[in-house]
Order: sequence, then structure tokens, then C-alpha cells
Amino acid sequence: MRQSEYFIKTLKEAPTDETSINAQLLIRAGYIDKLLAGAYTYLPLGVRVLDKIKQIVREEMNNIGAHEILMPALQPKNIWEETDRWQQMKDIMFQFKGRGGIDIGLGTTHEEPIVDMLRKRVNSYRDLPVYLYQIQDKFRNEPRAKSGLLRGREFSMKDLYSFHQTEQDLKDYYEVVKQSYVKIFQKLDMEVLIVEASGGVFSKEYSHEFQVLTPNGEDTIYYCQCGWAQNKEIVKLKVGDDCPNCNQASIQESKAIEVGNIFKLGQKYAKAMNLSYLDDHGKKQYVYMGCYGFGPSRVMGSIVELFNDANGIIWPAAVSPWSAHLLLLGNDQETRAKADKLYAELQANNIDVLYDDRDESPGLKLKEADLIGITKRLIVSDKNKDLIEYKLRQEEEISKHAIKDIIKLFDV
Amino acid sequence: MRQSEYFIKTLKEAPTDETSINAQLLIRAGYIDKLLAGAYTYLPLGVRVLDKIKQIVREEMNNIGAHEILMPALQPKNIWEETDRWQQMKDIMFQFKGRGGIDIGLGTTHEEPIVDMLRKRVNSYRDLPVYLYQIQDKFRNEPRAKSGLLRGREFSMKDLYSFHQTEQDLKDYYEVVKQSYVKIFQKLDMEVLIVEASGGVFSKEYSHEFQVLTPNGEDTIYYCQCGWAQNKEIVKLKVGDDCPNCNQASIQESKAIEVGNIFKLGQKYAKAMNLSYLDDHGKKQYVYMGCYGFGPSRVMGSIVELFNDANGIIWPAAVSPWSAHLLLLGNDQETRAKADKLYAELQANNIDVLYDDRDESPGLKLKEADLIGITKRLIVSDKNKDLIEYKLRQEEEISKHAIKDIIKLFDV
Repeated sequence: MRQSEYFIKTLKEAPTDETSINAQLLIRAGYIDKLLAGAYTYLPLGVRVLDKIKQIVREEMNNIGAHEILMPALQPKNIWEETDRWQQMKDIMFQFKGRGGIDIGLGTTHEEPIVDMLRKRVNSYRDLPVYLYQIQDKFRNEPRAKSGLLRGREFSMKDLYSFHQTEQDLKDYYEVVKQSYVKIFQKLDMEVLIVEASGGVFSKEYSHEFQVLTPNGEDTIYYCQCGWAQNKEIVKLKVGDDCPNCNQASIQESKAIEVGNIFKLGQKYAKAMNLSYLDDHGKKQYVYMGCYGFGPSRVMGSIVELFNDANGIIWPAAVSPWSAHLLLLGNDQETRAKADKLYAELQANNIDVLYDDRDESPGLKLKEADLIGITKRLIVSDKNKDLIEYKLRQEEEISKHAIKDIIKLFDV
Repeated sequence: MRQSEYFIKTLKEAPTDETSINAQLLIRAGYIDKLLAGAYTYLPLGVRVLDKIKQIVREEMNNIGAHEILMPALQPKNIWEETDRWQQMKDIMFQFKGRGGIDIGLGTTHEEPIVDMLRKRVNSYRDLPVYLYQIQDKFRNEPRAKSGLLRGREFSMKDLYSFHQTEQDLKDYYEVVKQSYVKIFQKLDMEVLIVEASGGVFSKEYSHEFQVLTPNGEDTIYYCQCGWAQNKEIVKLKVGDDCPNCNQASIQESKAIEVGNIFKLGQKYAKAMNLSYLDDHGKKQYVYMGCYGFGPSRVMGSIVELFNDANGIIWPAAVSPWSAHLLLLGNDQETRAKADKLYAELQANNIDVLYDDRDESPGLKLKEADLIGITKRLIVSDKNKDLIEYKLRQEEEISKHAIKDIIKLFDV
């Protein structure tokens, strides 16, 4: 993509009402625009990052045998009354009346609609297990939304739901999902802790949260270097105590951002909404259910909180909006011809490259490139006639390469 | 995809409250589920069709130099008051209060938020033109929603917005978009009429609607075989009159579904919201704007209205949920081994194939395959040991092929 034909408008200053690092940097660098507190427009660069995160999650969900669906945001009151959640959620769910007096809510989560869909379609044990997920926008009536993409009134979620004949089958799949989440965060270069949390009133077992340690997180967790971690709500230890897992006196406390959670729901929703099946003896049984959340937009914000410096964002390679940022620095026709040639060659090798071909000063181009934070940078300049400068955003070191050797720098 | 591991639940009967052909067939065939009137869940087959339609549109938008963004559904009242549309739209826009008393609407269209975003970023004539589109879900507070995917309370839209220095530049791009829509509908095998409609109060020129002729449409249009067409609101002719374009006495009337529309908005929104730029003389000018809608979910419903028979849906190849439906008919181990081998070979050639490997009767498999309507069908059966049966869903004729010749039947 030629930057002269693209839409990136960087801003010199972040809006004064944005206090979070992720919102400040993402707005200044041209990724997002705030429409209202907690609801952002994704600009072209932002759509690319968000889509890359969604695609990584989608591939892992497909790998564990789940199939993609898409449920509406609009929710009818009646199914939420079956689980008593219409009333329980009234503070956090946008609820209003449509024409004809119908009561409508905006989905904060989707257990009720998916159970409603399945109870019309699951009859026999032969119909189970079922693994379905969606990547869809959720809504929450937040009183304050001041953390950029970390806590939105409207935000992207991947929610997977699994349905099983037995509790053991649910437990087995729960572990499969947990491992798939580990893979997803590895691809994103994010170090996460798998944190034990309350299983809720209907389960004595823990659920698990995937938490990223950062001073700007809204959660508080207790953890040990060995990997043991619990959230504040259930922990019975304090800083410096012995870890119950490795027995070292090493418990630490940290602020953290929850970027995923997995939950065994047991038969709670199946019983409330009569999602049942006939087992191989013809006897009616309730379905066991699990749910597994992952927030692509929150992950996008978290990555910016984790990976940045004084000059801007530093994207991990897997979610960099473009794989390479090619900068033309200089006014020589020969230099431009060389940059055009490299641009064509990168494209021919299926490397998605943003090409800063604009008539702007080298200083401005370099400064904007740092702010935008694309992982790999290539510079063609008047002063380096025959060599291309190559630099990773996260490193200071610059190496120089002949044009014929550039493609080798990419995994293609 | 092996059907034994997939999620397709066909229903013997459509719900009695669904009267439209598209909803009846899509629900029975396992593409969608109704959550509430006008809001449907897309099941795995449905997501695939909808995504294919979206991707065709996305590619054409990218081809005409537009960049993808994503705007929120949640809308703040203040920007809609600047154009007087908060009040004008109150019947059709879901409007409610969030915590803290803020007024929120759900986006029915996105002129206001995109102009708000751009007025913070466009300063000079050098910042124009700008072409931005999104593929996003819209909401309408419909009193009745009885036409399946043709008229939803929540529905998918592609909305493109263009911004120009001059009226002529807007007119030129309007023609570019019109031609890109023609290409999109050709790819979808949909015959559309480009229908003249009112340009609204701020333009004497016509806008254009893309209409599909079908007895189940909600619109009424007047047209001639030569291509001339106007909608009911502006037409001054009657059936049998001379066509103003070709002078034949040939005007006809038909019901139709509007699947796209394009509109020159002129400076209406720019003036109301102060979206301006400095021209090359340093003088302030208002931006010219166009908007261009296309409804992927409505198109999906329209395709089903157009292409079906007594047995089910008949998808055009470009949006068939899977390119091929491979049916294993029979119980022989040898037959199954042959079908498994063909399945592996199709996958190795990147043909997306749904493989009905279930232990079900041939009659049930054939009936379900007709209902689902995948374009190309391949049958491996006990009775045809060495030859594969090949049939297009839309044709009666069956041809037989050696396994080595099957791949040639696909464009790969």
C-alpha cells in the first residue's frame, strides 16, 4: 500500500480526556478515533491489527474442532428471564423498548441465545458434543469507560461455547481450550498467567483467567514465579507467603489485565432453559456446558500497554498492521526508482508492505514510522545508494543489505 | 469438512411464524436461527455464505481505492443533533439512556460519526479525496420484521463514504462506484436493475438503487427491457407507456428488492457539521460527500428468493457455503475408502469440500444435500465402484468421471 494513497492521520497530541497509554498512542498514531467514551472507530491501520488478532483466534478455534457462528446483539427479554439474568444484569446490560413495546437488551454475553438455538436442535446423545464460537461485538452499560480499549461500552469478543454429555467430557475439552489459549498468547508474544478464580455458585472448582501483568491493569492478582496464580477474590495468602505449589516464600502481588477467561458452567443453563438429550438408554439428561471468552479489542489495547516506548508503539510481528514499512528518504529520482522497485518486489513475494512514498521530510517520516510501530522497517535513501537499511522497531541496530537479499529477511 | 464433525441441523418444517421463502429455506436447511423477529443467528453454513458475500464486496471496495474502517454501533446524541437527525430518526433508531444519563442511539447509518472523525483530521485540499468503507451491523427499530433477511432489525451493511474537493470529483467517483457494484452483482449471478430514485431535497439529480426483480420484493419499480428504470416515488409513467430512453411502448411494473443504493450527498453533512478544508488559495471550502450502501445479509436473503426449487436452495457458485458437497452413499468399506481418498485429494487441491461421511441412508443424504444447495455435488456409491457421479445442483444431468479427472471439474 502506497502511503500517499492511504488514510493515516497521525495527531501531534492525544485528546486531553484520554488518560490510558493505549488510547493515547492508538489515537495519536492513527489507529482509532473516539466516538464516545468506551466506543471507538477503528481506522484502516486499526482494522488491520484487530483483524489479525481475530484471525489468530479463529484459526486456533478451528483447530480444536469448533465451528464459527454469528449471533445477534439484540436480545429478547424472555430467554434472559428463564435464567433470571434479565433482572440480575440490568445495571450492565443496555435494556430498552422497541416499537410495539417489545423489551430488548444488547448482548453482554451469549449463553441464553445459544442455549435457545440448541434446544431446538439437540435431541439425542448423537447430537453431542457441540463446539460453537463467534467473533462478535458485545455491549456493556459501563458507568465510566476511561481505559481506552481495555474496558469498552462496545467491544469485540470471541466467545466459544461447548456442550457435552458428561462432566468428564466437559473437563477434557476445557483443558483442550486452555492449551489453545496458551498457543494464541504465544503467537501474540504476550506473557500471560493462568490465574485461578471462583467457579461461581454452581461449581466448587476454579475457573481460569488469562491475565497480563501491567501496572495499568484493573485487576489484582497474587502469583509465584513457578506459575501458580490466584485472583484477589479467592486468594487466602499475602505477599511473601509460601507458594502452595512450589513451597518457596515467594508470593507476589501485581496489577493485571484479564484478556481471556474459561468457565465450566455445568448444567446451570441447561437446567434453567431445558437443554436436554436422550441418552443411549432413552433417558432424558441435561447437557453440560462450558464457555470460553477472549477479547480481541482488549488484547489490542493490552499489547500497546505492554509494547511501547517514548516514540510510539512496538507491534509484535504477528499483529503488526503491515509486515514491513518501507520508507523512501530523499528526493533523487534514482532513489525513488529503487524504492519503487523494492516495493514491487516485496508485493510480488506476498509481503504486505506499507510504502511511505510521500513528499515529506525524512525527519517526519521516521518519527511517524516510530509512532505507528510496524515491526520491520526498510529504508531507501539518497545517501545509501546501493544498500537498503533494515531495522526492527524494537531494536536500535541497523543492518544494510543489497536489494536482492531483502526478501530473505521475511518468513515467506 | 467432515459432516459427521460439523454442525448442520436441518429441520423438517419451517417455524410457522416465518412466511418468507428465504427465512423458511434458510432455517430448514440449517443456515440461520431466529432469535427475535428481524434478528437471526447465522449457523456455520450461514456464516460461510455471509462471509463470502462480504469478501466479494471487500475486494471490489479495495479495487476502487477505498480503505476499510469499523465504526461503533453506539451513537452519541450530540452529533446527530448537529444534522437534526436525532429527532428525524427517532421512530427508526433505537434510542435509550445509558448510565449517567447519557443519550445513546444504535447506528442506522453512519454519516454523522464518519464526518465527526474526519473533521478532526482533514485540514487541507491535500487531505482529499478520502474513500472509507466498513462492513458492520446496523440496527433499525422496525415495527414489523416479517421478511427474513430482507428486512431486519439488525442486519449487515457495507457502507462506503467518499469525500471530495469538487462536485465533479464526486460525480466521477460516483460512476466508479456504480461500475464496481455492477461487477459485484455479476459475481453473485444476480441480475439487477439500476433504478433512478429521488436525490433528496438537496440534489436535483437522481440517486440510484440496485433492485432485483422478485414477486416478494417490498418495492415497486417501473422499467423497460432497454435498462431504463425508475422507482415508484419519482416515476411519471404507467405500464405500457413509451420508454423515455428507447421510445418503445414497453414500460412494465414489478415488485423488487433493493440490494444497494448510491447517493450524492453534496455538501449537506459537511455544512451541518463543519467538515471543511483550505483550498490551494488558503480559502475555506466545504467537502463534497457521497455514500454507497450494500446489504450483505439482504443480498443473502435475495439470492435465496431468486434461486430455489421445491427441494431447496440453489446457491450461485461464488457464494456456495462449500464449493463441493461429496456424498458417500453405501456401506461398503471399499466405497468409504474411495470417498475418503477423493476427500483428501479435493482438500489437497484447496477445494473447500463438505464431505457427508455420516451413517445415514442415501435417501436422507440426497434430500438434505438438495435442501442445503451446494453448487457442485460428487457422489461415491456402492453401485458405482469406479466412477464418481458429478451433478450441478441447478441441473438434472449427471455425468460420471474417473477419480483422476475430478479435480479438472473445479477452477483451481
